[in-house]
Amino acid sequence: MNIPKTSLPRIVVIGAGFAGLQLAKNINTKYYQVVILDKNNYHTFQPLLYQVASAGLEPDSIAYPIRKTLRNKENIFFRWAEVDHVDLDKSEVSTNIGDLVYDKLVVATGASNNFFGNHSIEENALPMKSVVDALNLRSKILGNIEEALNTTDLEKRNELTNFVIVGGGPTGVELAGAIAELKNKILPKDFPDLDLRQMRINLIEANSRILPEMTEHSSQKALENLREMGVEVWLNTLVESYHDNVVSTDNGGTFIADTMIWAAGVKGKFPEGFEHTELGNNNRIITDEYLEMKSASNVYILGDAGLIQSDNYKNGLPMLAGVAMQQGRYMAKLLNNEARGQKTEPFVYNDKGTMATIGRNRAVAELKNFKFQGILAWFIWMAVHLMLLVGFRNRVVVFINWSWNYFRYNNGLRLIIRPFKKKEKTGPVHSLVEV
Amino acid sequence: MNIPKTSLPRIVVIGAGFAGLQLAKNINTKYYQVVILDKNNYHTFQPLLYQVASAGLEPDSIAYPIRKTLRNKENIFFRWAEVDHVDLDKSEVSTNIGDLVYDKLVVATGASNNFFGNHSIEENALPMKSVVDALNLRSKILGNIEEALNTTDLEKRNELTNFVIVGGGPTGVELAGAIAELKNKILPKDFPDLDLRQMRINLIEANSRILPEMTEHSSQKALENLREMGVEVWLNTLVESYHDNVVSTDNGGTFIADTMIWAAGVKGKFPEGFEHTELGNNNRIITDEYLEMKSASNVYILGDAGLIQSDNYKNGLPMLAGVAMQQGRYMAKLLNNEARGQKTEPFVYNDKGTMATIGRNRAVAELKNFKFQGILAWFIWMAVHLMLLVGFRNRVVVFINWSWNYFRYNNGLRLIIRPFKKKEKTGPVHSLVEV
Repeated sequence: MNIPKTSLPRIVVIGAGFAGLQLAKNINTKYYQVVILDKNNYHTFQPLLYQVASAGLEPDSIAYPIRKTLRNKENIFFRWAEVDHVDLDKSEVSTNIGDLVYDKLVVATGASNNFFGNHSIEENALPMKSVVDALNLRSKILGNIEEALNTTDLEKRNELTNFVIVGGGPTGVELAGAIAELKNKILPKDFPDLDLRQMRINLIEANSRILPEMTEHSSQKALENLREMGVEVWLNTLVESYHDNVVSTDNGGTFIADTMIWAAGVKGKFPEGFEHTELGNNNRIITDEYLEMKSASNVYILGDAGLIQSDNYKNGLPMLAGVAMQQGRYMAKLLNNEARGQKTEPFVYNDKGTMATIGRNRAVAELKNFKFQGILAWFIWMAVHLMLLVGFRNRVVVFINWSWNYFRYNNGLRLIIRPFKKKEKTGPVHSLVEV
Repeated sequence: MNIPKTSLPRIVVIGAGFAGLQLAKNINTKYYQVVILDKNNYHTFQPLLYQVASAGLEPDSIAYPIRKTLRNKENIFFRWAEVDHVDLDKSEVSTNIGDLVYDKLVVATGASNNFFGNHSIEENALPMKSVVDALNLRSKILGNIEEALNTTDLEKRNELTNFVIVGGGPTGVELAGAIAELKNKILPKDFPDLDLRQMRINLIEANSRILPEMTEHSSQKALENLREMGVEVWLNTLVESYHDNVVSTDNGGTFIADTMIWAAGVKGKFPEGFEHTELGNNNRIITDEYLEMKSASNVYILGDAGLIQSDNYKNGLPMLAGVAMQQGRYMAKLLNNEARGQKTEPFVYNDKGTMATIGRNRAVAELKNFKFQGILAWFIWMAVHLMLLVGFRNRVVVFINWSWNYFRYNNGLRLIIRPFKKKEKTGPVHSLVEV
């Protein structure tokens, strides 16, 4: 890889997500040459992906060019590259644009969907982990409603407008709520000639309650809110397979649905080369309380990809943006200290709370000392997410969109711009229509 | 197609561009059932596509959901459909979602690229006629700069950062100017470790001057502006072929460039079924001065797809958004009058002027009684385009982006979100890089 050689130790950071970006912002490049690699040239604000999928925000508002973040910092190099392999013995990273040796390696590669080995789901369900996934989902939802107009076959129409979301964590709950708002407030005006009562939004959760990370009370509130908005929530239900538009569950139920969205599990993601290292729960690489790999020194794992095992954190830390950001900042501090010959205390996670928004004026928030529901939680949720967005322009544009949606329910982002998702070759659609 | 049958005559409108949308807004649906078909579910504001391509605006700002425009109008049906064929004898339209009979047909299908039969150009050049084209171009420009970083082979690097734009009309001039601003103001901050002096922007025009529709003086001003900004303008030059990254011109010149953008010609576009009707210049269907096809009654052609032939307009009208919008409104008036048994005067084009922007504070504008250059023309250009954008939200977001760019040159839309454009399989890139 075309990176200048200097006398400073080289840190290679894989991934410019929450952890990688915080590290890059806070590392002192007087001490290190820093190379950041990412398969995208932008950072994605994952917590708002579901709003892109449900036509509430444009993709450009929740993504931010990595190079722009790194401006004004010398001695820090970004490369748009996919890392194929890490050779821990040779301290070398192999990518699609060449190889690179490191003195220190930081793996902040995040998580991918966990289908728990279920191939039918993996092949047929739609994921929502990236901007491209979210855009595909937006096109799929809107495209299916358009298609539903073209058929007089009720079964076919129901299949097209039946949405199944698997997983009652924050992503599933927020997406179900957002699609329900689309159904209740926007689509009836856009599609006056379609009977939208037949459109169904199903949220399936294996657990006995949604948002299992939160208190029983918040779970209950979220459940009530979703049901009031028309989402059908199926608890204690496990999806077993999904093919030919049939979702089968462990209690013998079936859903005939053209769209199934998978939000039921993620697992640590990392390049080849770590398979035989010590892996914990959810395929995460085990680290000590300084975030260093137990089986390789000078290799650090941050965010979703890593799992702390220490006396303080017996079960590791949750896979959350907050953890990743704090670990990124911690890692910068640790490396800066090390260069100055100073010690750093072990990583301590400062849990600031959990929030999920369900719809307009509806959210649940559990902060350190307070629990909120309803409109107050909703405003807190919005304020926190606006603050966390990278870039002032993004904040302004998101604020406009949200205000617009609040007052008018109508921001006009309902574009199907990925035409390859349109099922032009299905055939049956054509034969079913009435001339 | 699943459209209710009523006693009202049915108007089928193909295309929701400038002409189709104005027609839909102004037609009186007490008299007609109106069905609008478009291959996208959104209207595209084509004059600003080049700003999407050059990372100045997000695609959602210059596109507008068609259904949103048609809200609150009864008896008007939009269908997301591609029209394959029109049977003028049977008065029937065939689409990918079924067939539909019409009483009156309005063809407002716009234009497609005209490669004048040159296959090497058609296959290898990038077009810029749609939102998807513009996004592809954005990804290509930014992706090539990223790739250029990875090679130490100067020839390869020059090839990647050499941009050839063919066609010195408004599209080519505006795009060349926008890419020059990207090069001069934004990329040096994003890519401090790349020598951007080697990045070239070439604008090739067959004519002896750019913007040939405008006065000599404006052409000259635009040329001076482009050259000051570092664009290399090649007049009296015709591109003959483009393959294996080599652009060959009629005067024996060659450009080695990985990117060639085609803005040198468009032609009328329409579904099958019109091939054997009377076609004029640029493949446009000939109409009388009431925009009705000469060889078929109750069939009207608006905008770029049609060519008026009358005593007033011997050479037809230019292929411009202004003409299309006025024709859409005229057609609504004519059809409304007809329903009331009233006559309508022939169509008269009210030429409000031409404008092109070259860069910050640089534009040329020729209005009815005034000609402007420089900063005043630039402000007029911005005001007019903001006004013409459909949707208040779009205007606000575009205004923010433009203001932001004006003061900071830095709006943060430089995302490569079409990863399939990344040439992962080129191979040579990998072997050229230095480890």
